[in-house]
Amino acid sequence: MRQASHTLTLRTTGKGLYECTPEVAAWVRSSGIESGLLTLFVQHTSASLLIQENADPDVRADLEDFFARLVPEASASYRHRSEGPDDMPAHVRSALTQTQLSIPVNAAVPALGTWQGIFLFEHRRAPNQRRIMLHLIGG
Amino acid sequence: MRQASHTLTLRTTGKGLYECTPEVAAWVRSSGIESGLLTLFVQHTSASLLIQENADPDVRADLEDFFARLVPEASASYRHRSEGPDDMPAHVRSALTQTQLSIPVNAAVPALGTWQGIFLFEHRRAPNQRRIMLHLIGG
Amino acid sequence: MRQASHTLTLRTTGKGLYECTPEVAAWVRSSGIESGLLTLFVQHTSASLLIQENADPDVRADLEDFFARLVPEASASYRHRSEGPDDMPAHVRSALTQTQLSIPVNAAVPALGTWQGIFLFEHRRAPNQRRIMLHLIGG
Repeated sequence: MRQASHTLTLRTTGKGLYECTPEVAAWVRSSGIESGLLTLFVQHTSASLLIQENADPDVRADLEDFFARLVPEASASYRHRSEGPDDMPAHVRSALTQTQLSIPVNAAVPALGTWQGIFLFEHRRAPNQRRIMLHLIGG
Repeated sequence: MRQASHTLTLRTTGKGLYECTPEVAAWVRSSGIESGLLTLFVQHTSASLLIQENADPDVRADLEDFFARLVPEASASYRHRSEGPDDMPAHVRSALTQTQLSIPVNAAVPALGTWQGIFLFEHRRAPNQRRIMLHLIGG
Repeated sequence: MRQASHTLTLRTTGKGLYECTPEVAAWVRSSGIESGLLTLFVQHTSASLLIQENADPDVRADLEDFFARLVPEASASYRHRSEGPDDMPAHVRSALTQTQLSIPVNAAVPALGTWQGIFLFEHRRAPNQRRIMLHLIGG
């Protein structure tokens, strides 16, 4: 039984879902660990993680639209405005989704379903560089 | 220290919460691992996982109602409609809840609180067969 | 490779976010495990867990406000009312956030981002004593 860890850095260019399944799967394969538990942890409070459908890109656009409607930027009720109108909504959207995901690993592959992909969910408008910690424990 | 894994299959017959605590607890007991970390991972993007109250069934009905109101099927704004009016709402409801849950295990029992149960949250109308990957690491 | 576990008890005095990063970090340090995976699991269905910004307290107030608006106490549609008007909203707020969080540990420290703190999210009005199970596996 052993562990491996790695920092994955993703560049984003505005709100929406960015798939990182290939990068994550490649790192798992390179770790030499055949079976175990993979954990992804995003080190930000204005970006989050989602497992979502990886087939129809309309699903990603509809998800972004839903969260934009549910957590509007123009709400007069936010106290926290010093970092821009999209910052407080970004914290709320992060709270409603995941900061962390764990996925079992079998035969050196994350055990995702057929239509599942791993996505970083960017909640800010400006380009960002986002850090995801990867941790794998197993044998 | 060692690992065990298993696929739990659940049949669903429409939207709502389906408890699977007994099946999960039975598998943990049968694994022979006394203390460790249990992970459940649902291999779908239109069903999810929740820890919720296992006492009053009204809680489950109210949860289903809340999500039905928050993510209406009849929204004209969804692009993704090819898989039926309940498919895009199912992806949103999954994003708002959990694809994965991890629970510490003590004395060969998941360390749930007194009123906590483990539920699969089905978001589609049609009957489905759902796969939950179980992973346990410990000793 | 080994494991450690602990129960953290927090007192709350009404709805809102209560930071517990120092208590969690102190326990991790005392465990003697240098690198591994830390899991927090809250044993309640009317309180939850969040990683959120630990800098501006306005973010916490805005989060509380958002959830109070999204899940109103005064909804006539709840069936489950026997435990008070804030109980069913508490279950919904828990479903929308996290019962469990896992965080990689490096150099005996949870690998949080610069602005990230660990919070218990209390959803009930009355004072409560809340139990969070901590589990750490690593070496």
